[in-house]
Amino acid sequence: MSERVEVHQNILDKNERIAEENRSLFEKKGIFVFNVMSSPGAGKTTFLVETIKRLKDKYRIGVIEGDVSSKVDAERIASTGVPVVQVNTGGACHLDASMIQKALTHLPIDNLDVLIIENVGNLVCPAEWRLGENLKVVLLSIPEGDDKPIKYPLMFSSADILLLTKIDLFSYFNFNIDQVEKIVRGLNSNIKIMKISSITFEGFDEWLNEIERRIEEVRK
Amino acid sequence: MSERVEVHQNILDKNERIAEENRSLFEKKGIFVFNVMSSPGAGKTTFLVETIKRLKDKYRIGVIEGDVSSKVDAERIASTGVPVVQVNTGGACHLDASMIQKALTHLPIDNLDVLIIENVGNLVCPAEWRLGENLKVVLLSIPEGDDKPIKYPLMFSSADILLLTKIDLFSYFNFNIDQVEKIVRGLNSNIKIMKISSITFEGFDEWLNEIERRIEEVRK
Repeated sequence: MSERVEVHQNILDKNERIAEENRSLFEKKGIFVFNVMSSPGAGKTTFLVETIKRLKDKYRIGVIEGDVSSKVDAERIASTGVPVVQVNTGGACHLDASMIQKALTHLPIDNLDVLIIENVGNLVCPAEWRLGENLKVVLLSIPEGDDKPIKYPLMFSSADILLLTKIDLFSYFNFNIDQVEKIVRGLNSNIKIMKISSITFEGFDEWLNEIERRIEEVRK
Repeated sequence: MSERVEVHQNILDKNERIAEENRSLFEKKGIFVFNVMSSPGAGKTTFLVETIKRLKDKYRIGVIEGDVSSKVDAERIASTGVPVVQVNTGGACHLDASMIQKALTHLPIDNLDVLIIENVGNLVCPAEWRLGENLKVVLLSIPEGDDKPIKYPLMFSSADILLLTKIDLFSYFNFNIDQVEKIVRGLNSNIKIMKISSITFEGFDEWLNEIERRIEEVRK
């Protein structure tokens, strides 16, 4: 094994241990956690703002915002009134479990039902790093094109839910939904696939039903 | 310095050495090289197909296609008739100089004027890895949103040319071009910014003039 591969494996092993610590803490505190991943610009923050607005009267929500740089996303999330922590990775292309562990010290974890983690916009790196979450949600926006699951298979094979976002723009693009569904199900037979728009709110009822069902399953 | 940081630095140093070897080889052979980077789905491949169609009668072009997985992009490029090599990084989030060095053995480098490198779709990692190129081109598509330069500054501060792609869709999105230009010029005062569509071909003449000027500058 090369030095590089060995160090990478050591780092991933350490990440798994900390992810497991996070997982135990979330379980003990009764917090349901989901990790939201996608390319830059697939619409994660807009989608989360609309989701939080619709869930915050029912659940006590906290958010960890991951970005290489800036706090623009945290400010947008904060406008919903829920507690949010911005993590700037300072160059790193993904969040890891230790960043989550540190960020948790800035959240009221004794008073949370749901923790949402918005990962760095990247369709490659975040897929490798478990954070201690219950659920992985990946967004693929219609403008990105229907070839993404073939080109970035790990992200789609490791997600629990795939949201096809910006579906309101469907008629402007040459995007074959049937083919994407077929390829993604070939990678991951258990994945739930939904179509959604954070502008027209198409698909939001189905998404909210699904996430509430998952939250209740873990919390009961 | 932590073990992780040190190993990363060693790897980057090694990459610089190989990038320099690539650079010398390109200079010796009189090949102009540009490295095209963006998020997944910003339109790199479609843009390159249209660029190659318009340049291939004037220059002998070769292409290196970088993807985590699959050969779909190489097949699209091959349809233009120019020689192309697909590099699958097998998980890695960017191309590095040694991947380019190996790929060159599969290209007719004694009979090339221009080498185009299409990097892995990723707005974070590829920015750190010099390949030996003359020019870095970054694409930002209108559907991705105007906050990307703030959130992924290294990519925009290290590029020579920024192409705002899918400009034909401008009226469907809330994208502030003036603000993007201001932020990007704040990061990088030398960057050339152009608007382009690979569907309506808006901006193509300006892009072709610019790239031909840069090619001639290096080759004379």
